[in-house]
Amino acid sequence: MSTNRSPEIRKDAVHNRWVIFSPARARRPSDFKAKSDPNSNSKSQTECPFCAGHEHECAPEIFRVPLDSTSEWKIRVIQNLYPALSRELEYPNSESNSGPASVAGFGFHDVVIESPAHPVHLNDLSPVQIAEVLLAYRKRIDQLRAFDSIKYVQVFKNHGASAGASMNHSHSQIMALPVVPPTASSRIQSMQEFFKQTGKCALCQVKQDDLLIDESSHFFSIVPYAATFPFEIWIIPRDHSCHFHEINDDKAIDLGGFLKLMLANMSFQLNNPPYNFMIHTAPLQVDSKDLQFTHWFLQLVPQLTVMGGFELGTGCYINPVFPEDAAKVLRDVRVPN
Amino acid sequence: MSTNRSPEIRKDAVHNRWVIFSPARARRPSDFKAKSDPNSNSKSQTECPFCAGHEHECAPEIFRVPLDSTSEWKIRVIQNLYPALSRELEYPNSESNSGPASVAGFGFHDVVIESPAHPVHLNDLSPVQIAEVLLAYRKRIDQLRAFDSIKYVQVFKNHGASAGASMNHSHSQIMALPVVPPTASSRIQSMQEFFKQTGKCALCQVKQDDLLIDESSHFFSIVPYAATFPFEIWIIPRDHSCHFHEINDDKAIDLGGFLKLMLANMSFQLNNPPYNFMIHTAPLQVDSKDLQFTHWFLQLVPQLTVMGGFELGTGCYINPVFPEDAAKVLRDVRVPN
Repeated sequence: MSTNRSPEIRKDAVHNRWVIFSPARARRPSDFKAKSDPNSNSKSQTECPFCAGHEHECAPEIFRVPLDSTSEWKIRVIQNLYPALSRELEYPNSESNSGPASVAGFGFHDVVIESPAHPVHLNDLSPVQIAEVLLAYRKRIDQLRAFDSIKYVQVFKNHGASAGASMNHSHSQIMALPVVPPTASSRIQSMQEFFKQTGKCALCQVKQDDLLIDESSHFFSIVPYAATFPFEIWIIPRDHSCHFHEINDDKAIDLGGFLKLMLANMSFQLNNPPYNFMIHTAPLQVDSKDLQFTHWFLQLVPQLTVMGGFELGTGCYINPVFPEDAAKVLRDVRVPN
Repeated sequence: MSTNRSPEIRKDAVHNRWVIFSPARARRPSDFKAKSDPNSNSKSQTECPFCAGHEHECAPEIFRVPLDSTSEWKIRVIQNLYPALSRELEYPNSESNSGPASVAGFGFHDVVIESPAHPVHLNDLSPVQIAEVLLAYRKRIDQLRAFDSIKYVQVFKNHGASAGASMNHSHSQIMALPVVPPTASSRIQSMQEFFKQTGKCALCQVKQDDLLIDESSHFFSIVPYAATFPFEIWIIPRDHSCHFHEINDDKAIDLGGFLKLMLANMSFQLNNPPYNFMIHTAPLQVDSKDLQFTHWFLQLVPQLTVMGGFELGTGCYINPVFPEDAAKVLRDVRVPN
């Protein structure tokens, strides 16, 4: 790693966020290899409600893939048994802007079971099978955005206990929110500012040779210039597009293969770490003319560091790996077949 | 716990931040008891550079307590051997506001060794000894705020590996930054807004019977109305005061005893969890007339949950414990002597 470099504070133009790059705090790439077993919270297969044959132990199903399957499903989209938000509450129309305030926790919290088989993880699936998971997200978002009160949909995946997964069986989650959450608001504000100043979309401009990891027909991947976390990866559609749910079947298959490749590179170089991915899309119920400066992307974050008091206190992150170095590590990998 | 309550989204007037309270995700207080050993990353005492007799293995000392001690020190303030920021860089005067931008990582990153003895943790010290640690923070801040380029000082403590501590020997850290970090900026903006609307300080107004944990001569402690984390505690000075470094010796002794009590209550009820505390103070190099709406406080956070993709993606936190319930758990404790 860059042991001779001085610390540097970089600003991410997409989030308008400063990150401290501090190479003195890292010495070797192996410092970052994951040590813990991401499957340590696994229930045994016989106890797992996400396995085929245990459907009755789950909260109600929303749909399955294939749609008309009775027993041999490939993917199930179900309600979360312990939802963070409730679909049964009424969304209040007004809210106070000052002082203590609270609103009812209206919203949807769903789970996408990515395979009927317990030991199969997302990166074990074929590109087409991963595309089917992505298209299940699209289908569920299409249902959720029909509700006027849903302003944002966050798709995310937690893989491994230390990345927040409470179930080992491969799954992702979809939360539909009655408000645009803070990260999305500030991203949109920051990208709008960039557009005003340059006439360009910040994400269309983000590709730099030294940050590039790889490219597919419709996507490219980079370690962002001011990555918040070591070895963070952004997968970005080449074509300017605001909403993830605009993805078509061909692009979904391309993304399925490309995401599989990025998961393989990351797992190979960093010893199968716990990880999260988040799909960052544009708000709903907004005229897309007013969102021309936004561009959806998928953020993939291996969980290699622990958040401490400095990050909690300041909201400022310390990343010990310069993005150029991380991109080189993730690019220079040939995963054995 | 409140199993029958509906989810609720609350706004914290101090941070202008929304938190989702979701009781369905917690069933019993014991769900939150810490499972891991916070000392699992401990070096053995013979290898620890923070122990008395190993001073030569550390980065340079800044001062010790007592100041004139040669060998029998009680507290040492030293440079961090792996600083996130460098005191040897020059702080640049200008910065770009758009596009990729970076500035040199100028700043100070110091360590406060709280005891010469390896097995002694902060909550093992007497109130007066904890006050000496607090007064060492004050003294170091007084040195750092003499630099015009230092705009903010963050004092924090990581206790336990999963709270970010890389050394088991009891210590805290002080980082002096050339910028006001995002959490501080938004807190100040939000408190200014509250002051404009109500003519009052948001923290002077925060005390509610159902959120109160305990009181001392000069401080009180609450679980905040929109706590980000389960069982989060704020220790707040009764007297309106912007800067932590304004604390006098008497108040430091009172705070030493009160912090010890809060650490004891938290450890007893939650099985000695890893934790962080952060001192939230006002920016430096600002006329204190312009900071009349700010109020310093200490935030104490037991590390009981893992940040997942939802929090990473949205910047919105899900707290499974209503603050009123957490306050009751932390209030109704009589730690055996």
